[in-house]
Amino acid sequence: MPVQRILIQLDCDPQASSFDAIVAIDAGAEMLLQHGGVTPDSAVPLVHGAMFTRGGSDLAATAIFIGGSDMQIAEAVYDRVRATFFGPVRVSVMLDPAGANTTASAAVVAAARHLPLGDRASAIGCRALVLGATGPVGQRVARLLAGKGVAVGVASRSLERAKAVCERIGAAVPEARLEAVATVDVSLAGSAFGTAIEKADLIVSAGAAGTVMLDTAGRLLASRARVLIDLNAVPPAGVDGIMSADKSRQSGVALVYGALGIGSIKMKIHRTAVSRLFESNSLCLDAEALLAVGETLA
Amino acid sequence: MPVQRILIQLDCDPQASSFDAIVAIDAGAEMLLQHGGVTPDSAVPLVHGAMFTRGGSDLAATAIFIGGSDMQIAEAVYDRVRATFFGPVRVSVMLDPAGANTTASAAVVAAARHLPLGDRASAIGCRALVLGATGPVGQRVARLLAGKGVAVGVASRSLERAKAVCERIGAAVPEARLEAVATVDVSLAGSAFGTAIEKADLIVSAGAAGTVMLDTAGRLLASRARVLIDLNAVPPAGVDGIMSADKSRQSGVALVYGALGIGSIKMKIHRTAVSRLFESNSLCLDAEALLAVGETLA
Amino acid sequence: MPVQRILIQLDCDPQASSFDAIVAIDAGAEMLLQHGGVTPDSAVPLVHGAMFTRGGSDLAATAIFIGGSDMQIAEAVYDRVRATFFGPVRVSVMLDPAGANTTASAAVVAAARHLPLGDRASAIGCRALVLGATGPVGQRVARLLAGKGVAVGVASRSLERAKAVCERIGAAVPEARLEAVATVDVSLAGSAFGTAIEKADLIVSAGAAGTVMLDTAGRLLASRARVLIDLNAVPPAGVDGIMSADKSRQSGVALVYGALGIGSIKMKIHRTAVSRLFESNSLCLDAEALLAVGETLA
Repeated sequence: MPVQRILIQLDCDPQASSFDAIVAIDAGAEMLLQHGGVTPDSAVPLVHGAMFTRGGSDLAATAIFIGGSDMQIAEAVYDRVRATFFGPVRVSVMLDPAGANTTASAAVVAAARHLPLGDRASAIGCRALVLGATGPVGQRVARLLAGKGVAVGVASRSLERAKAVCERIGAAVPEARLEAVATVDVSLAGSAFGTAIEKADLIVSAGAAGTVMLDTAGRLLASRARVLIDLNAVPPAGVDGIMSADKSRQSGVALVYGALGIGSIKMKIHRTAVSRLFESNSLCLDAEALLAVGETLA
Repeated sequence: MPVQRILIQLDCDPQASSFDAIVAIDAGAEMLLQHGGVTPDSAVPLVHGAMFTRGGSDLAATAIFIGGSDMQIAEAVYDRVRATFFGPVRVSVMLDPAGANTTASAAVVAAARHLPLGDRASAIGCRALVLGATGPVGQRVARLLAGKGVAVGVASRSLERAKAVCERIGAAVPEARLEAVATVDVSLAGSAFGTAIEKADLIVSAGAAGTVMLDTAGRLLASRARVLIDLNAVPPAGVDGIMSADKSRQSGVALVYGALGIGSIKMKIHRTAVSRLFESNSLCLDAEALLAVGETLA
Repeated sequence: MPVQRILIQLDCDPQASSFDAIVAIDAGAEMLLQHGGVTPDSAVPLVHGAMFTRGGSDLAATAIFIGGSDMQIAEAVYDRVRATFFGPVRVSVMLDPAGANTTASAAVVAAARHLPLGDRASAIGCRALVLGATGPVGQRVARLLAGKGVAVGVASRSLERAKAVCERIGAAVPEARLEAVATVDVSLAGSAFGTAIEKADLIVSAGAAGTVMLDTAGRLLASRARVLIDLNAVPPAGVDGIMSADKSRQSGVALVYGALGIGSIKMKIHRTAVSRLFESNSLCLDAEALLAVGETLA
């Protein structure tokens, strides 16, 4: 009998996510070991259990998924998990706290359908603006776009926090071209925010649920944008005029995507990524690797 | 490959019930997501995971079971779960904390084999007495019988608590005919308790484990009762002369059922109900719906 | 459809062991109910769930595994689990906290390949020395060897703790021949420790990870030992000159086993034992029974 595909779900929240569990099952995980309230320390023996129970090619039938609503704790668990492996004694691992990495990847995959992000020389000519860029999804969208060569405006109500995010992304992506932008009332003449909107080829809104990030006036300024993506699923719309189900709908000069439109791409990336975990014992699927998975599906 | 049948077990106790888990597996759940210590608040994201991972007819392959030893918390979770659904974005859900709903349903199914409870016009002519009626099972037995039209004596050592239960049932079943009865020494001449015993066509004892609810003297008073049910599985018997394994055994003028006799009916209801959860995405199986399931098995 | 093989994993640590879970799945458990932070009290309703859900021969398809890093709590859970069963209403249960019982069994199985432990009359002529004998694995190795009739030196830095272990083993194995030995610098002339090393036919080192239990000088004293076993997997070696992967390697006059060499035997015992749990509903697999399982594999 072939060995069962086992996914160890390490979740930093007290209750392990049922969303991640169901997607994992639908992606082919045959057994699920769910752990809630996981910390870097408590992850170590769980990783040892993955490392020392199966040998040879059977090792690929065990994998680890790291989730939870706190991105920082989840990343710390991810780092500890990888530091616990040694040599070939390892299993594949995926990091997707609150779906932030698969969602950010899906947004970039959607944008790349209409903008030349796949070719670095062309991507360098693109400008993007990420609204709500200090949140978990926004940060990853900005990082992924910067990694493609796109010039990225990192917008937040707090210029200070926007700058901190730019520094963090700059540390991970040294060649990144980033600009911190404070979101202000767009009616203020000559604001950096207004200018950033006007110059953007791509705007991705990743603000809190139910928060308007780009109102009617702001939307009018976005005359150059060919793609507008709103990741907010809760009314009112984060970007004026975008509906949740929008998926490459023409709206003015732009093609627009809503939360459900991106969500269907996200689900494909999520499922495909989990199934890939079982193809080898050495994958490390963080945001960049998940984007690469998404690009193979496009 | 067809999608797996996933049951999300929301248990209010720290350790999710193994009883409920094993019955669910035997009823056809292919994957089980067990959660202990669930509260109304922590249930919400778990329900979202059920709602937003599968679409169309696949949604019926996910279902929710709510259990635990605290009926009130479990009911609060049940209410929150249903309030979290919207429109057709929902899954089937079953409420059976500590088996109270399936056990109460089984007791009524057993009684209905010998008393005309299925026909409202006849049921109105029946009188029942529920002993230990303020406990989780007793309350549900009283409510289910009242819903059938039976006149129900709600007995408790505390008349006050019996009255509170009558009010609660009356709120849920406006047409209910209920009488609060204080359990006293049956040798007291002319007590309301003695009268209630004498007039009852059906007596269901749902007291605490190992507690005598109807002693030899009390049993002698029950001259009119055609069915006596004792749900206590721990010696001494809750109703004098009933043995745990009794299942429609003739004892004096009555047919008697013990805890195991009712338990076998309960197990059939429990298993059938779980399997029905996966037939649609919109079932809500609380006590009344579980009784309806039991009636289809009779 | 045949009933699924369900293993209830009762783990005393907050996070249930993934090691035990994966081995159980590979041994044929089809469904796993994992419980962390289990205490004797919280185990009882979980055992009831195993007892009262399936009947007849189906009862053998449910089993209980008790693990965790604290041997004493795990043993208390094991005792409570067995006390909860009554008559034929029981399921098979295995006790293997932190793998101590399967590891100790594997060490004795390895030793018995080269020493006449299978025959009591011959075993009585053997002397063993267990280093780190107060730890969970060391205690069980000493107990299993004493049960075979071997004269066992129980060595610890603390003579007091060594004596306490001797008393505990003596209570479980009345015929045991045990000697408490304080581990000291072997260069001390005429120490009881030096004498115990010199006289031992078998030395098993079960000290803490990365702790040298028998250095070069000590190893030289072990002139009579035909088998040396080091259960420490973390450098430096617990016994000078033994490598983790050693499995019956000739080293001087002795055959030596390292942690991985014993580990492969342990895994076979562990898997076989779990699969046996489902063959009847009345097995109780503690250290002695697990050794018996190991002997059938030799």
